[in-house]
Amino acid sequence: MTPSLQVVIPLFPGFTALDGVGPYEILQRLPSVEVTFIAHRRGEVRNDRGSLGMAADATFDEFPRPDVVVFPGGPGTRDLQSDQTVLAWIRQAHTTTRLTTSVCTGSLVLGAAGLLTGLAATTHWACTAELAAHGAVPTPQRVVELPEHRIITSAGVSAGIDMALRLVELLVDRTAAEAVQLMVEYDPRPPFDAGSPATAGAAARSRAAEYRDRRDGSGGPRS
Amino acid sequence: MTPSLQVVIPLFPGFTALDGVGPYEILQRLPSVEVTFIAHRRGEVRNDRGSLGMAADATFDEFPRPDVVVFPGGPGTRDLQSDQTVLAWIRQAHTTTRLTTSVCTGSLVLGAAGLLTGLAATTHWACTAELAAHGAVPTPQRVVELPEHRIITSAGVSAGIDMALRLVELLVDRTAAEAVQLMVEYDPRPPFDAGSPATAGAAARSRAAEYRDRRDGSGGPRS
Repeated sequence: MTPSLQVVIPLFPGFTALDGVGPYEILQRLPSVEVTFIAHRRGEVRNDRGSLGMAADATFDEFPRPDVVVFPGGPGTRDLQSDQTVLAWIRQAHTTTRLTTSVCTGSLVLGAAGLLTGLAATTHWACTAELAAHGAVPTPQRVVELPEHRIITSAGVSAGIDMALRLVELLVDRTAAEAVQLMVEYDPRPPFDAGSPATAGAAARSRAAEYRDRRDGSGGPRS
Repeated sequence: MTPSLQVVIPLFPGFTALDGVGPYEILQRLPSVEVTFIAHRRGEVRNDRGSLGMAADATFDEFPRPDVVVFPGGPGTRDLQSDQTVLAWIRQAHTTTRLTTSVCTGSLVLGAAGLLTGLAATTHWACTAELAAHGAVPTPQRVVELPEHRIITSAGVSAGIDMALRLVELLVDRTAAEAVQLMVEYDPRPPFDAGSPATAGAAARSRAAEYRDRRDGSGGPRS
């Protein structure tokens, strides 16, 4: 038996569900991997809209030395930037991980912990200034790999799926990654070409801003 | 205020998480939509591997007339094919929905309820024979739309994201769909081209079969 690789995905109030579940669905297909959702406390954690609850099955304390961290994003990351428990955990965990990774604004937490100072990293397209404020060098790529630092960051929300396939290649091999891609039938056919600020038209950009405002009248972070 | 559209996503033991969360993440971005996860009972429901728990916030009984149904797949759909409560619910709900939809093997439940008899429909690539057994006509497309029947089925797991963008166009308009695509930065860049049986090589197909066997020694359904 191959020893299991321990992958942890932190949950926190205001996380974005697909940021975590996209990579989860890829990584959980590997027999040699155990993925665990962790949080401050075991039990249900609500997402950014409050209409999705997911179970944290363990606490940060129970996983001091995971093999891989996948830190999801969401508006709730902003509170984590000053959460000393989380920041100390990720700093310590990173000393022994094979890979420390993030999706979307999960990179802001890595940044707040000091892991990205002076390094290339990515995040949601709307949040690059916040990433730069942590001393990182925002890099407009879907996935930014820093093998010498064992850090991989990915862009907004759905980018975590692409990153996770690459993680499978790094953790197992390319055939494993292709097998998982086949199992989840990841042969994307977006009906529109509006997935980045470079391709979305003015009307889509304007509507996106309107939707974010209507969802969150407070003007707070939305991604 | 625009009245909210009620979208429901059924949960059941052995569901595949991304099947539900992919469309959820797209649809929940619309201020005019409320998405609710429903199940036989309120409370936590475990996925196909058991390592992810999601909360059902309402029961089937509480949503007899949803505007939209998104039925996810997973090994657990096989039990639902003879679950008279679920079959009666979907049959009745479909009489008044704007759209009744499925992801992956969710279409087997629609089929078991008699909604797909004689109709073109899709499912996970590995499960077309099971779909045909319900009298549907398996159609190897990522998304199959039957506007005259108010039914849309989508292929395996990740195909629900593509379908959901199309749902947004149908329920609101194309600009809304493009805005959501931008918000979730859905600009896919799979690192490999193995997302369908037509593109995956023999090694990937063989490894996928091996992983499914190792996950489920019982030889039962895996998708």
